[in-house]
Amino acid sequence: MNQLTYAVIGTGAIGGYYGAKLARAGQAVHFLLHKDYAHVHEQGLRVSSCDGDFMLPKVQAYASTTAMPKADVVLVALKSTNQHLLRTLLPPLLKPNTLVILIQNGIGLEADVQAWFPELALAAGLAFICSAKTEPGHIRHQCYGSINLGNYSCKDSALFQAVLQDFCNAGIDAHEVDYAEARWKKAVWNMPFNGMTVALQTQTDSLLKHPATRQLIYDQMMEVIGAANALGISAINELFAQKMMQMTDEMVPYSPSMRLDYDFHRPMEIHYLYTRPIAEALAVGYEMPRLQMLERQLLFIDAHNVPS
Amino acid sequence: MNQLTYAVIGTGAIGGYYGAKLARAGQAVHFLLHKDYAHVHEQGLRVSSCDGDFMLPKVQAYASTTAMPKADVVLVALKSTNQHLLRTLLPPLLKPNTLVILIQNGIGLEADVQAWFPELALAAGLAFICSAKTEPGHIRHQCYGSINLGNYSCKDSALFQAVLQDFCNAGIDAHEVDYAEARWKKAVWNMPFNGMTVALQTQTDSLLKHPATRQLIYDQMMEVIGAANALGISAINELFAQKMMQMTDEMVPYSPSMRLDYDFHRPMEIHYLYTRPIAEALAVGYEMPRLQMLERQLLFIDAHNVPS
Repeated sequence: MNQLTYAVIGTGAIGGYYGAKLARAGQAVHFLLHKDYAHVHEQGLRVSSCDGDFMLPKVQAYASTTAMPKADVVLVALKSTNQHLLRTLLPPLLKPNTLVILIQNGIGLEADVQAWFPELALAAGLAFICSAKTEPGHIRHQCYGSINLGNYSCKDSALFQAVLQDFCNAGIDAHEVDYAEARWKKAVWNMPFNGMTVALQTQTDSLLKHPATRQLIYDQMMEVIGAANALGISAINELFAQKMMQMTDEMVPYSPSMRLDYDFHRPMEIHYLYTRPIAEALAVGYEMPRLQMLERQLLFIDAHNVPS
Repeated sequence: MNQLTYAVIGTGAIGGYYGAKLARAGQAVHFLLHKDYAHVHEQGLRVSSCDGDFMLPKVQAYASTTAMPKADVVLVALKSTNQHLLRTLLPPLLKPNTLVILIQNGIGLEADVQAWFPELALAAGLAFICSAKTEPGHIRHQCYGSINLGNYSCKDSALFQAVLQDFCNAGIDAHEVDYAEARWKKAVWNMPFNGMTVALQTQTDSLLKHPATRQLIYDQMMEVIGAANALGISAINELFAQKMMQMTDEMVPYSPSMRLDYDFHRPMEIHYLYTRPIAEALAVGYEMPRLQMLERQLLFIDAHNVPS
């Protein structure tokens, strides 16, 4: 397969990191930027990483997808609160066979994009990474960094495998996983910790330290697992919840992305992280009372936190 | 019946108000005070009330129950976080037939005191009042003011009726109610609003204004009603929840007592307001997931709010 052309929509902590790794490895990567366009156009991208810092003094930066070349692969790392923008951002980038990978958190993301673009080849990118964009064009990568790719509707398996290979060649730990299982496994961690660190204005370690919230987090994980099981995803059980508890015990005190959005008075990704999975579970008769309560608390908090 | 001797344990927003009303009407009322003893001993009690202000320049004030006369009726209006103190505070006040009325919020209060004093005659006092102790010896009564008395273990019905009569004669709207039904009806309002105003650092009106928290409050009320029904209290149903929603819509924006405790970094009454009713329901197989989640959030908040 010839060299693939990549487009990155959302050049922040996630899109900026994976895009910069691919570009550094010699891939053709075209970055869409918004606020940071002028800075990155002039000064490139800088990655301060636990795996070694690097600088890309010159990157292909764009302020609009209409100015970008069509891509073989689009990496979407937008905040899902801006998901509706994809309806206009994507078309200029699409060839008949373009693979769009949604490197975003939540449930129902691919279904919505597929409804907008019925013929589109879609995949999920599940990023396991602690990183943040601390200044324009500057990504600080603290730890982890792997990505799992789950095929949603891509029929061109050669293309899918070529992308995996490109990620691996760029020094990224990348694996193919089952789409639905991977999305719900990620939700087992995301749904309790993202919302609870906001609702109680705290971090992961404090939630696990107090016995009351430790039990609550575990019960919430089991609600996600119950929902996944009800939806026919049988490979997730209480052992996975125990593993997530243990993994988080071993992490540094951590503020998940929703907590950072809250702190900076940005809209929180409540829809795809809570509303959609709760609705999907309810559609097959499974209730998630604790996570629905958390969703409602977050909707209240969000309404009072984001400047109108 | 001869004139009754009253003792008030906990001369604050509630005990101070009802005790002062009784004293003003000529009843023999003996007040136990702690921090405010010297002030009240010297200057008496002052009630600024929506029903008309009054002053009691001289009241029977005590710093210890051992100095107080034995009482026919003890009104307990302690914060239930100090409930253990009753084991030593009560005995000096008790005659063989003394009626102890617990004017406190929650479930399980009478059962615990009964376990400590198996022969004691107990009743519940359900106060419907907005009042606050704003300074030593100064009670500000904003609105409402009725009290319902539910007999728990008093066999002397003449005494019980005499107390009701004394309250009425003192200008207090007082009624006899079914004990268990009244305690659980009060919990229908108390469990959602006390904790949720703390968890979301807000007031009653804001919770009802946002559709997400409005629905959550209603669902929490229905959990309390479900628990009451499971415990055999059948007279409470969704009509009561609707009535409580409507009543709260019509109230001024309100901070329940737990929110005030939180604001002043005092321990919150989590045990009797949440832990006990949740445990009583669970003992008959009824789960309260939303209120259990709220309890756990409150335990976490309390642990970080009260100076150790």
